[in-house]
Amino acid sequence: MVLTTTRSTCEQRGSKPEALFTMDPNASGLATRLAEAGQSHLLKFWQELSPQEQGDFAQDLQKMDFQEINGFFRKAMEASGGSKDEKMDARMEPVPREVLGSVTRDRESLKDWEEEGLRCISQSKVAVLLLAGGQGTRLGVSYPKGMYDVGLPSHKTLFQIQAERIVKLQQLAEQKHNTKCSIPWYIMTSGRTMAATKEYFSRRNYFGLQKDNVIFFQQGMLPAMDYEGKLILESKGKLSMAPDGNGGLYRALGNQGIPDDMQRRGIEFIHVYCVDNILVKVADPSFIGFCVKKGADCGAKVVEKTNPTEAVGVVCKVDGRYQVVEYSEITLATAEQRNADGRLTFNSGNVANHFFSFSFLRDIKKIPHVDPEGRLVKPDKPNGIKMEKFVFDIFQFAKTFVVYEVLREDEFYPLKNADGQDAKDTPTTARHALMSLHRRWLLNAGGHFIDENGRHVPAIPSLKDGTDLPIKCEISPLVSYGGEGLEELVKGREFHPTLMIDEHGVHELVTNGV
Amino acid sequence: MVLTTTRSTCEQRGSKPEALFTMDPNASGLATRLAEAGQSHLLKFWQELSPQEQGDFAQDLQKMDFQEINGFFRKAMEASGGSKDEKMDARMEPVPREVLGSVTRDRESLKDWEEEGLRCISQSKVAVLLLAGGQGTRLGVSYPKGMYDVGLPSHKTLFQIQAERIVKLQQLAEQKHNTKCSIPWYIMTSGRTMAATKEYFSRRNYFGLQKDNVIFFQQGMLPAMDYEGKLILESKGKLSMAPDGNGGLYRALGNQGIPDDMQRRGIEFIHVYCVDNILVKVADPSFIGFCVKKGADCGAKVVEKTNPTEAVGVVCKVDGRYQVVEYSEITLATAEQRNADGRLTFNSGNVANHFFSFSFLRDIKKIPHVDPEGRLVKPDKPNGIKMEKFVFDIFQFAKTFVVYEVLREDEFYPLKNADGQDAKDTPTTARHALMSLHRRWLLNAGGHFIDENGRHVPAIPSLKDGTDLPIKCEISPLVSYGGEGLEELVKGREFHPTLMIDEHGVHELVTNGV
Repeated sequence: MVLTTTRSTCEQRGSKPEALFTMDPNASGLATRLAEAGQSHLLKFWQELSPQEQGDFAQDLQKMDFQEINGFFRKAMEASGGSKDEKMDARMEPVPREVLGSVTRDRESLKDWEEEGLRCISQSKVAVLLLAGGQGTRLGVSYPKGMYDVGLPSHKTLFQIQAERIVKLQQLAEQKHNTKCSIPWYIMTSGRTMAATKEYFSRRNYFGLQKDNVIFFQQGMLPAMDYEGKLILESKGKLSMAPDGNGGLYRALGNQGIPDDMQRRGIEFIHVYCVDNILVKVADPSFIGFCVKKGADCGAKVVEKTNPTEAVGVVCKVDGRYQVVEYSEITLATAEQRNADGRLTFNSGNVANHFFSFSFLRDIKKIPHVDPEGRLVKPDKPNGIKMEKFVFDIFQFAKTFVVYEVLREDEFYPLKNADGQDAKDTPTTARHALMSLHRRWLLNAGGHFIDENGRHVPAIPSLKDGTDLPIKCEISPLVSYGGEGLEELVKGREFHPTLMIDEHGVHELVTNGV
Repeated sequence: MVLTTTRSTCEQRGSKPEALFTMDPNASGLATRLAEAGQSHLLKFWQELSPQEQGDFAQDLQKMDFQEINGFFRKAMEASGGSKDEKMDARMEPVPREVLGSVTRDRESLKDWEEEGLRCISQSKVAVLLLAGGQGTRLGVSYPKGMYDVGLPSHKTLFQIQAERIVKLQQLAEQKHNTKCSIPWYIMTSGRTMAATKEYFSRRNYFGLQKDNVIFFQQGMLPAMDYEGKLILESKGKLSMAPDGNGGLYRALGNQGIPDDMQRRGIEFIHVYCVDNILVKVADPSFIGFCVKKGADCGAKVVEKTNPTEAVGVVCKVDGRYQVVEYSEITLATAEQRNADGRLTFNSGNVANHFFSFSFLRDIKKIPHVDPEGRLVKPDKPNGIKMEKFVFDIFQFAKTFVVYEVLREDEFYPLKNADGQDAKDTPTTARHALMSLHRRWLLNAGGHFIDENGRHVPAIPSLKDGTDLPIKCEISPLVSYGGEGLEELVKGREFHPTLMIDEHGVHELVTNGV
């Protein structure tokens, strides 16, 4: 039973501890404050603590604004009551066609957008901001999720794949514009993952990136609550704290001088994304170019939602302002609503890939963007609720907001869960998603795969026995960012899987298993 | 290594065995015939057989036309060589909009179509033809697939679910038109499943249907071949035989007098489907009404294919004639082709739900429909190929062919594989698909689900831990065929899962597990 609140409690964290704590909670007034807030249970074990523990714990508790935390809790509970869903429906409007760019419906513009994006990158105006605070808890590991190896032939981690995409994209922009450039990579970690993440990047020499172009910063921590609104003790004298979610981004940015760093570097456009998407096109030039050409200060990459009950948030307008409405807030009638062309009316599925102009991101802290409305509340676990602000909570402040629709099978496959029966978004399926994409790149570049009987493998693999065992094929990002540049390597050639194409050439590997 | 050939070999099966077999294969000429056909290995164990076994085996072999079987084999091998895929691409055209009816794009017509279908049903002009020859081998059971229990709260089998849909649909048509009617149900079994199927229906009193409206008939058997084109021995004196696939339908119909029976009953329209689809709308009045209103002699129900590499056959034109092109025959370029509106060009995914007019089905046997072209060949298993005719091979002879597009989540979920890691189309996922549909029916009828904390469960359930654990909700087909008639039972009411709505009322069950 975990309920995490946001802000305030944490914002005071930077301030100096009060000079002297009165150890006795009754004398200090702490006991009264706790009682008023219904949090007296926190002192249950007070007498069992050592003086040192009492001091530390009192200091932690003094910093908390319990009334505010309780306020968040009440709103979270109201919001999850379901009664306001109907109201939300009436307030929702779909994304108008004129703000939408689509890789399938605007194919004639794709080349222009990509060129514009590459131009911006070549001028070192583009930065990438990675949300990587999560541990691999649901994957069964305690280290940062970005360090997870899904079992590709190369055994590259998510971090390495993403780093190499940045390396390659820099090269592509440099080659096209005959210049040097860099794409700074801002990596938000949490208190729990910072040390391991930095150590990993250092040990791996930043995967070919320049060390000073990889900037780590840290999100804050928040106290956890149970369903009754009671703060949870981790031990007898310690509150249970959790990273404050991706919504802590804006606070963390400001606290740690990231906007200043960006300004110093002349960054104008920022691509924000989450670490768990194995297919992510980091600093996607088409997406950036589209947003830039449209003069947008804020943009969201989406995939088409085709099944009404798919668990994905949708980008839409609410009360005339853009935001992401979480799937748990939508009624079935709204989810099933369709246009005359048969498409779902609310079909812009959020994939946590956003574009921000630098000035928008810089100025956002001046806006009272922490809006404690119920709609900012997202049920998370079956046995608790989590109150966190989201990255997309600032969409509503955009002057020019655009939406860019891409193909799910090309760009979005999140790694979320450990392998297991009926599990989705697992290491196995993520690995298959990436290898399937690379296999398609190879076919589209004119290569072929040959099976053990010497025949061409069909382009669409069969799913016998219900298990998806794709052709094993991995193409290093250092060779191809998005499928480009492969013809000279593979056209007219026949390959036996496992096929690996990397900076050392084209290899057929002999492997067992998947 | 199994390769199953079709036709001929089997068509002679009905003829009387030759009066006297010469036991010695050399003397009888059998050895010569086998040698000429490269099948001499079949006699490898001849000397070990008893005289009785020799006689039986010789009789089996005498009936085979080895040259023809070998011809099928050669064509199958050529076809799977991949070289003709490119040619197929050039010959393919998508389904034109004017022959397409869509539940999402033609909503204004849906009511008319349904009424037309119900009218036809009320006049007892509609029959259902079920392809149920398969055993549950891939599900890990040896009994007929239709007898499989996917673990619904009611533990109804596929057969029972489908039978009850027919019962309910008869009632709906009778109520609407104030008349008595029946929907005869022709069930094609195989030699391996006939006895068990008949016994099961008899024991369960035909699930409320009249016994004489449930007509069983049997598909033929075919010999199996390995990849070298060698017939396979099941034992030393016995060929390995397998049911001749759903393409054996037309031969079986004629052999067993089914068209005569249909004519006697005044059947004008037939809905053909496969047993494994747990969501199948048996005798779907909207589909039938659409086909009838369009004056079609042949129609295919499809779902929109949205992912280019999804393993589903597509309904399209080839050389100007309608057919289903199997996914293994399509190149990636064709699979990825899109229209200006962003949809896949070849997006009519075959779901093995067909409409035939009686006269079309009756007359099809006069047409030389067994066309031994490579395109009728379908790679099936990684270690073998299967040559079988398909139900849809007769689409090409239709005078007026139409296509009816429905929503996958409402109408198509095949049960194919046993539960297992990364497995698809399993008992668990099939059960979830049905319960998800029933949950949506309940929500759309104004009911609500309440969780253990007394709150409304969101309409779109979350997928925490990657496992899809839907609200457990089952609505008997005897209560609702397609979501109708539920308002009076559930509107404004709140339910705790497991919810069961059946002919005895609305029940909340206390269960554990899924």
